Amino acid sequence: MKKIQIILFLFIGVACIAQEHPSLTLTSAGVELIRSELGTIPLFDQALDEARKEVDAEIDLGVIVPIPKDMAGGYTHQRHKRNFFILQKAGNLYQITQEEKYAKYVRESLMAYAKMYPTLPLHPTNKSYATGKIFWQCLNDANWLVYVSQAYDCVYNYLSEEERAHLEKDLFRPFAEFLSIGNPKFFNRIHNHSTWANAAVGMIGLVMDDPELIEWSLYGLTDDGIDANEIDNDGGYIKVKGIRKAGFLAQLDYSFAPEGYFTEGPYYLRYAIFPFLVFAKGLHNNKPELDILNYRDGILSKAVNGLLLQTDNQGRFFPLNDALKGMSIEAREIITAVNVMYTYKGEDPKLLSVAKTQNKVLLDETGFAVAKAIKEGKEEKCVQRSVLFGDGKDGTEGGVAVLRADETSLVMKYSAQGMGHGHFDKLSFSLYDDVGEVVQDYGSVRWVNVDQKGGGRYLPENKTFGKQTIGHNTIVVNEQSHYGGSVKRGEKHHPEFYAADISNKSIQMISAKDNNASPGAKLHRSLFLLKDPNFNNPIVIDIYKVISDNVNQYDLPLWFMGHLLSADFEYDRSTESLQTLGKENGYQHLWKEAEGQSKKDQFQITWIGNGKFYTMSSIVDPNDQLMFARLGANDPNFNLRSDPVFIHRKKEAKTATFVNIIESHGTYNRVSERPIDPFSSIDKVELLYDDHAYTLVEIKSKKGDSWKLAIANVDNRLNSKHELQLDNEKVSWKGVYKMFKN
Amino acid sequence: MKKIQIILFLFIGVACIAQEHPSLTLTSAGVELIRSELGTIPLFDQALDEARKEVDAEIDLGVIVPIPKDMAGGYTHQRHKRNFFILQKAGNLYQITQEEKYAKYVRESLMAYAKMYPTLPLHPTNKSYATGKIFWQCLNDANWLVYVSQAYDCVYNYLSEEERAHLEKDLFRPFAEFLSIGNPKFFNRIHNHSTWANAAVGMIGLVMDDPELIEWSLYGLTDDGIDANEIDNDGGYIKVKGIRKAGFLAQLDYSFAPEGYFTEGPYYLRYAIFPFLVFAKGLHNNKPELDILNYRDGILSKAVNGLLLQTDNQGRFFPLNDALKGMSIEAREIITAVNVMYTYKGEDPKLLSVAKTQNKVLLDETGFAVAKAIKEGKEEKCVQRSVLFGDGKDGTEGGVAVLRADETSLVMKYSAQGMGHGHFDKLSFSLYDDVGEVVQDYGSVRWVNVDQKGGGRYLPENKTFGKQTIGHNTIVVNEQSHYGGSVKRGEKHHPEFYAADISNKSIQMISAKDNNASPGAKLHRSLFLLKDPNFNNPIVIDIYKVISDNVNQYDLPLWFMGHLLSADFEYDRSTESLQTLGKENGYQHLWKEAEGQSKKDQFQITWIGNGKFYTMSSIVDPNDQLMFARLGANDPNFNLRSDPVFIHRKKEAKTATFVNIIESHGTYNRVSERPIDPFSSIDKVELLYDDHAYTLVEIKSKKGDSWKLAIANVDNRLNSKHELQLDNEKVSWKGVYKMFKN
Repeated sequence: MKKIQIILFLFIGVACIAQEHPSLTLTSAGVELIRSELGTIPLFDQALDEARKEVDAEIDLGVIVPIPKDMAGGYTHQRHKRNFFILQKAGNLYQITQEEKYAKYVRESLMAYAKMYPTLPLHPTNKSYATGKIFWQCLNDANWLVYVSQAYDCVYNYLSEEERAHLEKDLFRPFAEFLSIGNPKFFNRIHNHSTWANAAVGMIGLVMDDPELIEWSLYGLTDDGIDANEIDNDGGYIKVKGIRKAGFLAQLDYSFAPEGYFTEGPYYLRYAIFPFLVFAKGLHNNKPELDILNYRDGILSKAVNGLLLQTDNQGRFFPLNDALKGMSIEAREIITAVNVMYTYKGEDPKLLSVAKTQNKVLLDETGFAVAKAIKEGKEEKCVQRSVLFGDGKDGTEGGVAVLRADETSLVMKYSAQGMGHGHFDKLSFSLYDDVGEVVQDYGSVRWVNVDQKGGGRYLPENKTFGKQTIGHNTIVVNEQSHYGGSVKRGEKHHPEFYAADISNKSIQMISAKDNNASPGAKLHRSLFLLKDPNFNNPIVIDIYKVISDNVNQYDLPLWFMGHLLSADFEYDRSTESLQTLGKENGYQHLWKEAEGQSKKDQFQITWIGNGKFYTMSSIVDPNDQLMFARLGANDPNFNLRSDPVFIHRKKEAKTATFVNIIESHGTYNRVSERPIDPFSSIDKVELLYDDHAYTLVEIKSKKGDSWKLAIANVDNRLNSKHELQLDNEKVSWKGVYKMFKN
Repeated sequence: MKKIQIILFLFIGVACIAQEHPSLTLTSAGVELIRSELGTIPLFDQALDEARKEVDAEIDLGVIVPIPKDMAGGYTHQRHKRNFFILQKAGNLYQITQEEKYAKYVRESLMAYAKMYPTLPLHPTNKSYATGKIFWQCLNDANWLVYVSQAYDCVYNYLSEEERAHLEKDLFRPFAEFLSIGNPKFFNRIHNHSTWANAAVGMIGLVMDDPELIEWSLYGLTDDGIDANEIDNDGGYIKVKGIRKAGFLAQLDYSFAPEGYFTEGPYYLRYAIFPFLVFAKGLHNNKPELDILNYRDGILSKAVNGLLLQTDNQGRFFPLNDALKGMSIEAREIITAVNVMYTYKGEDPKLLSVAKTQNKVLLDETGFAVAKAIKEGKEEKCVQRSVLFGDGKDGTEGGVAVLRADETSLVMKYSAQGMGHGHFDKLSFSLYDDVGEVVQDYGSVRWVNVDQKGGGRYLPENKTFGKQTIGHNTIVVNEQSHYGGSVKRGEKHHPEFYAADISNKSIQMISAKDNNASPGAKLHRSLFLLKDPNFNNPIVIDIYKVISDNVNQYDLPLWFMGHLLSADFEYDRSTESLQTLGKENGYQHLWKEAEGQSKKDQFQITWIGNGKFYTMSSIVDPNDQLMFARLGANDPNFNLRSDPVFIHRKKEAKTATFVNIIESHGTYNRVSERPIDPFSSIDKVELLYDDHAYTLVEIKSKKGDSWKLAIANVDNRLNSKHELQLDNEKVSWKGVYKMFKN
């Protein structure tokens, strides 16, 4: 391996001699092609118009480079952030339009930065594990350099040799050194922060033709002297056990699972993928010998495809872990991903349909290629499908499953902890339909860039509620969060994939186990998605077993989205005062609104949301507590949404099996005021057999059909034969599960 | 007047002799025209296709006429409701397509009803002041007859004379008698229920050529023997003092204010207008001598235009009084209104743009005319404008104002009680932007047709919260609702219009007073909508004065829509338990979440909703209590939404002046995560002068501009001259108000 590094280094050295400009994310040849077809490719012309408008307005304002002072959301932060976006666009505009005003604006701005930079101390906020100079954290400084290196590349030949020498000496080289050898904890880590750092240093290295910077960026610093116990602001470990490498290629090796899953989840992958892609563009154009887009079996392409598969029907990412809701495939990072992958990796016509939804392209040759292909009608429909992702470098540390049927998407999360942004939500699920969330994952307690809410940072309730187990749709044992809420413990374990079947169109399943998250309790959840003419939409069947030698309390929350319409058991609602549901681990944030018990062995709750009727039908024991609660207690600054939750509690049990059926059965239109199928189609759910080895559930529909669903809980071999003797019949099957319809 | 009635009656007698079929809502000539252009008018062809599909499916199912049994939402209710819709369509399909299967289906259905009807007792539910036979209330029976009379008209000539005689003897005549002389309380009243009754009886009378039914329908029953104190299920009085007339023409005389406002508000007008329109079609076609569409200066046309003006930017009706949210111009009643008015009253091309939004037309000659005009590109854009509506027969009983600027709509309600569906919300307001509600009117506590929620009827919380004053954006004195929550008292009074100016593009205003709603307290509210380059959107200025000889508590709620982002005063949020805000008059439904006080003489609260930032800036006294509360207490069945409210309380005061500025200043996009203008543009609001005669408010923007807003509180003459001597300057103006910009 060492040998290869040296060889590559030599190549770099050679390649740099012949370097022309631009060559980073624009190339001379690309620019020629764009110029020759200007005015004929609508989506690209639109990008050009928009960039012109935006940059022209800034040129009118003049160069503004204030002394850094504010946190995210504050003025100097926003101004410098805007500057780097504008500079990158101005550079491209100069290349494409050849209008000098753009080059001039870039030069003046760079000069202003070069004047200020040598005078800057660390950013005065001093709130980050890696405080920046322009911004409160190095991460944003790296963002700046990724964008501005592109601007520099575009005006490189416009500047005089003296100007370049000045900029490189006073601004770019010190900037790059600050982000690398100046902040090894930030630079030399397997983490998205470091990817930005690597990309920033590498990109300016490519433009400056600086082999040292390029080497650091690709292979990391050889000796960083970081302590193994240091943590970042999000509580994540700087050093990951067993990982001794750093730099961009190591990020590619260790950041993604083999099928492209990113352990922090899609919201962060969307963010993290960007520096990968933008540096990959630069490497593709400058270091073809690296063949970066086929590195590790085309891992970047897999990551992009994985990202596109982790979206609901509206293109919004499933809000796993510390995710903000509403982030979607229309994000600028995904525009970049689609443009780059389409152009440099196979021209997949399905990507064009994503680009069409985005209705925006980059102002560079990849954006041009996409816009041109769309104009030529080359796109193909991008159909969402079920998918299983393994987590961890080898894909063996649990994972995430997305089961889809018609417009229903069921997401089960049995992935590893996900580092500092992970939630304590082992074996949780969330559910989506054509409109949006049916059973939600809360996401993170944060209002990104909104100054009024803690400067846009993670709010205290993210830790006290957002990450806690009760905030997710999974079992909480004795009101304790998984791994006692410790990231350190969480990172040592992960759930285990047990079985899956996503090939069957009428029934799909995913099953996983966890033996470590709740000490002394073994969790096993199997989720099925059944499509049958008895039901207007695919239904979810959830069989969730917990086994313990101790007597425990088991809570299974359902974060249903909408307004409760009815429950078929008696409950008492607190009418005169509300108390919290508990004291800690997220329970302190819940107001207990109502509690009841079912006299039957099955209960149903129906809610309405998104103009639809939904029902959960569940097996219940007469001793179980059935509770409704609402978020918002112990939230002094109104940081939490006021969302409802239903909690099924088994107070004293060693083992328990929860069985829930969730249906989307009807619709309600506020204009016609006509409810269509407002009632559940389920007549009966029953547990016919249940022990540690087997579970057999019977479901009867109101139309008179019935199903038996058998699952082997211990033996997950596909060829094993199983047999259960019931009172009147024998049930036998082969493999992990079998659905019998009568 | 008596003479005219007799003459009209003679005309009717004459006209009926020559009657042909169809002639009610379809005419022979119209059908000829439609047939000749079938397949060439897209929107009409679409209506035909949809009707075919729907009716063909029902024909396949066969005729289903169950014995009536269920409440609204239940099976027999829904089935009979579906039957009358389908029958009307089947009749039209028979006329348009000439396919016998449709006529046959209508005949079989009518025969089934004719067989059952004579055997029916009153509907077994017995829950209405006027219990029906097919449905739980006569109102639905009248709906049935309005639709089915059209079906009968369409198959009239297809049926044999014997069949007709049988249907008229066993079904239609007894049905019409039951709705009229059989239920005078239902039939002989000025109320939308009676309009349906009048229309039903009149329409079947027209088809049957039955002068007695037609006379009853137009002029009411001469002696109904109804007690003056009887009330209906909604608490409204059957007899209205001073009104001695009944029948359809009296409905037209007394139901609408001269400019078309309907005292129950737009949600009910949308509902109420339908029988007016459908019967008007029949009268237009059969009794041209009545000139029904020009009756009372074209009151129906004014009502339709008024309805279209009482909508937000998405075409949804302002949810005044007992309104369900989301009801919009796409409702079938508005499709009818637009089709009829366009065709029979002036072919206003602006109505075509509404029809285009509806994207649906009626399957009759009015729908055909609209569809054809749209095909021919005749539509003109329908631009919303500010408007003042007077309430009451003469338009003098208060009213409703809609101020609009750009995409902002400010609605002030100073109308009369609005009968049984009115709310105790004198001088309240609500605010809308391009997306939806900014400051909401809760509407009614009801889930129409949703069986799980009380069979779809008004829920108990509609009375205990929905109608109560604290549920609205207006002052509550001593925690008592207006008129002590008594409809009877409410109907005796109404607020008084004070002043308005909707002609000025930069500032509009509406001002009204109320001296009766809260005993001993005189309320005076003036709302302004200011458009100025200092602000991204028009801002609301609210000056709300209350004067009393007694020491009172004044609460001013703000039902803001969204999530609280920040408040610039210190408040304590209840973190461990919640209590109700009060014991009665709606306060028992509010959880008190937080309370604070301002140390300054001004406070601001900022919230986020609809992807926008909003701020209210208010003048405050250090003793004022500033509270946040949330709906949901004392709501045992989860009937209420969990909405937030802010309450500004002055605990012990004789007089008080609330001054609030509401801005929509910025936006937030979840994909770009970029807040634009997240902070208020208001620097300072100050009360420079305030006594019973004058109020002078100063507003300063952060950009450094300032405004003085002067208002005369007693003298509303437009020519009066006013002068105020301040410390350093004299302020003088002419008329009710003046805005000075510095």
